[in-house]
Amino acid sequence: MNKQRKVFTAFVILLLMTLTGCSCTGGIKQAPLPSWNEGAAKASIIEFVQAVTDKSSPDYVQPDERIATFDNDGTLWSERPVYFQLLFAIDRVKQLAPHHPEWQTTQPFKAVLEDDMQVLAASGEKGLLQLIMATHAGMTTDEFSAIVKDWLATAKHPRFHRPYNELVFQPMLELLTYLRANQFKTFIVSGGGIEFMRPWVEEVYGIPPEQVVGSTIKTRLEIREGKPVLIRLAEIDFVNDKAGKPVGINQYIGRRPIAAFGNSDGDLQMLQWTAAGDGKRFMMLVHHTDAQREYAYDRKSHIGKLDKALDAAKQNGWTVVDMQKDWQVIYPFNN
Amino acid sequence: MNKQRKVFTAFVILLLMTLTGCSCTGGIKQAPLPSWNEGAAKASIIEFVQAVTDKSSPDYVQPDERIATFDNDGTLWSERPVYFQLLFAIDRVKQLAPHHPEWQTTQPFKAVLEDDMQVLAASGEKGLLQLIMATHAGMTTDEFSAIVKDWLATAKHPRFHRPYNELVFQPMLELLTYLRANQFKTFIVSGGGIEFMRPWVEEVYGIPPEQVVGSTIKTRLEIREGKPVLIRLAEIDFVNDKAGKPVGINQYIGRRPIAAFGNSDGDLQMLQWTAAGDGKRFMMLVHHTDAQREYAYDRKSHIGKLDKALDAAKQNGWTVVDMQKDWQVIYPFNN
Repeated sequence: MNKQRKVFTAFVILLLMTLTGCSCTGGIKQAPLPSWNEGAAKASIIEFVQAVTDKSSPDYVQPDERIATFDNDGTLWSERPVYFQLLFAIDRVKQLAPHHPEWQTTQPFKAVLEDDMQVLAASGEKGLLQLIMATHAGMTTDEFSAIVKDWLATAKHPRFHRPYNELVFQPMLELLTYLRANQFKTFIVSGGGIEFMRPWVEEVYGIPPEQVVGSTIKTRLEIREGKPVLIRLAEIDFVNDKAGKPVGINQYIGRRPIAAFGNSDGDLQMLQWTAAGDGKRFMMLVHHTDAQREYAYDRKSHIGKLDKALDAAKQNGWTVVDMQKDWQVIYPFNN
Repeated sequence: MNKQRKVFTAFVILLLMTLTGCSCTGGIKQAPLPSWNEGAAKASIIEFVQAVTDKSSPDYVQPDERIATFDNDGTLWSERPVYFQLLFAIDRVKQLAPHHPEWQTTQPFKAVLEDDMQVLAASGEKGLLQLIMATHAGMTTDEFSAIVKDWLATAKHPRFHRPYNELVFQPMLELLTYLRANQFKTFIVSGGGIEFMRPWVEEVYGIPPEQVVGSTIKTRLEIREGKPVLIRLAEIDFVNDKAGKPVGINQYIGRRPIAAFGNSDGDLQMLQWTAAGDGKRFMMLVHHTDAQREYAYDRKSHIGKLDKALDAAKQNGWTVVDMQKDWQVIYPFNN
């Protein structure tokens, strides 16, 4: 082909694409999941995605039914030494302490101010709830969102000395991208607070606020200075964990996922709910096996306990990711 | 250009589009809102959409922030003689009556079985709640979805003798399409039950289940015959009406809409919440002024009362659609 013809052809293509509103969505295809080592886990993901997206496959699924749900703590980002939302509450108590002299002598606040994690742990669920309510309620939704963003901009993880939203798993980011490139709609379905996640998950995971399902406290509409605001109330609305996850999925999404990703017994019911649907399904657990690069814990852990769900995965042939073996890198900053 | 070159060029274009994954999304552009008469209402919609989608406009809004929320009853479909969901409950009571001999002598069921709408109305909110719980709870979510679909396939509107899901407003369908063509994400935000809407709204409005916000009853995960199911409980979870609408919007969507569409005082807070955001906003009310083709009602109506919101619209310069003057056709079957 002579040069003139090449230029002419390129010009015609450009012109036609402009006129007809064409856009390129494919581009040059990269091999998916580059941070995943070759092995059964990676192969099972790719096999599933190919089966449900190939129109000639008996397992083909229409794009609008390609719903994938992801737990957050321990699945998309780390959850040690304790859930990051609890570390947020602890930092917040310290910040607010000057306005609450009574906290110096009242548990569980006293324990927080004295960094006494043993006493804090002993305060149990009731103590935890008091911490959450003292730090997550009483302000408008916009104010709370700003508080979360400020914390992420300043707080650092005690071991990795990085902002918490950098402690996300690079292989899972690639998995989210790979699924969305195959017309999956990706949702977070977390036991964490919806409004603790929404301020940052779009930027970090590419998941918009309307695709975040989580635990909620109640809110109430009020008029302040002539403007409507939503006030966060010290009252639990919904706990999106364990048997709550299928409830939350049904309430927010209204369709059963065809793929679900978790890491603990808190995700077992979500995976069972996903598996119980018709047609091809994909269920995956992230097994934290890498004490050197991240953390190693499972059956006996207080945070992110993985026991019954690990048995269920073995019984049902679900994919179990061995973090140490299956992941080339853990965090984006390892690259 | 000689014939050989034309064929060659066409071939190259086709080849490149295939290889690069190009697709045509633009096509030939139709004039938007064909069933809307020329006038202030139509002009205000188009002016708004152009302002927020034109990158050179000071009012430009990023696509992911283009959230539009629609009330359902009276805004997207009719709501007379009474809310269609109530007619569903009434039909369901009649269907279930053989299994409930006690209903023959117990209100409000007796009134329903005797078609005594006056006594039914006198039973008030408490009676209504009893009807809803007797007909909407006690089954799995899948079973309820099938019941709703069966009803839509068989029940007919008393005046128009059409299935209820044909009594949707053609101009509003065009508005939904127009907004989505301009990269808006369209949500239903209705006082009606989420699970009463989800079985049919995707087909009728092009709105997927995960973009439906509404009232909910609680559900509980159970294992039946070895499979997890969600049981609908006779317990109100959330009423998505009036001051509940901003709460529901925040809970489900997590962003403030930039455009909101309603028809009654139940939508006032949603419109105020939308209006209170920064940047350009669009608020619209459908005013039912057409007794001949649909219904005419406003300030004194028991269903879809439009009084305070009509005053607010006038004060704030919101768009008010005069159904009789602004809409060329009402229902798709009028075409």
